[in-house]
Amino acid sequence: MGMKVVDVRGAFEFSPEKMKKVSLFDSDNLFCDLYCLEPGQVQKVHSHEGSDKVYYVLQGQGKVTVGTEEKVVSQNEITMAASGEDHGVVNHTDEKLIMLVFMAPKPA
Amino acid sequence: MGMKVVDVRGAFEFSPEKMKKVSLFDSDNLFCDLYCLEPGQVQKVHSHEGSDKVYYVLQGQGKVTVGTEEKVVSQNEITMAASGEDHGVVNHTDEKLIMLVFMAPKPA
Repeated sequence: MGMKVVDVRGAFEFSPEKMKKVSLFDSDNLFCDLYCLEPGQVQKVHSHEGSDKVYYVLQGQGKVTVGTEEKVVSQNEITMAASGEDHGVVNHTDEKLIMLVFMAPKPA
Repeated sequence: MGMKVVDVRGAFEFSPEKMKKVSLFDSDNLFCDLYCLEPGQVQKVHSHEGSDKVYYVLQGQGKVTVGTEEKVVSQNEITMAASGEDHGVVNHTDEKLIMLVFMAPKPA
């Protein structure tokens, strides 16, 4: 397998039903995905013991929950939920929201 | 410790001596850093067994090595070096290069 280079802006995909997750890299050690949310779409608050997740906003803004806090996270901002912490996101705006998301390690 | 949100564009730092690495998150499971390269600066080709590294170009472009390949990676493009693969980057341009970099798991 050769070196894979992805133009992230050409990989955005949306679904009218729910948040669209686009896999960019899926290795033994990590997931790297795009989360593409139309207005009103959500990733419900959840947690996974053992894995950390980093959210980086490529476009738009959303309300991100980490632990017991919820903050608006905007384009060019980044945040992280550590292992076991509740986390989720809602696109509370009327514009598209796209996030680059890393999770490591992969859940067992 | 509360929820940490970082404006990535406010975190860029450069050094005249060498590539500047800015730590954004350093958890039990991963490193998330900015690599800020002035023209001509490099991260020498190296490898680490057991950890994968993802490079996402926030601004500019650089020549990234993964394994035996070298490709120009430009703003909004992303690539990954898997565990044990040689990797490195050189800013071959006359503009600044800024990359968002994830490594997981942390080297033992």
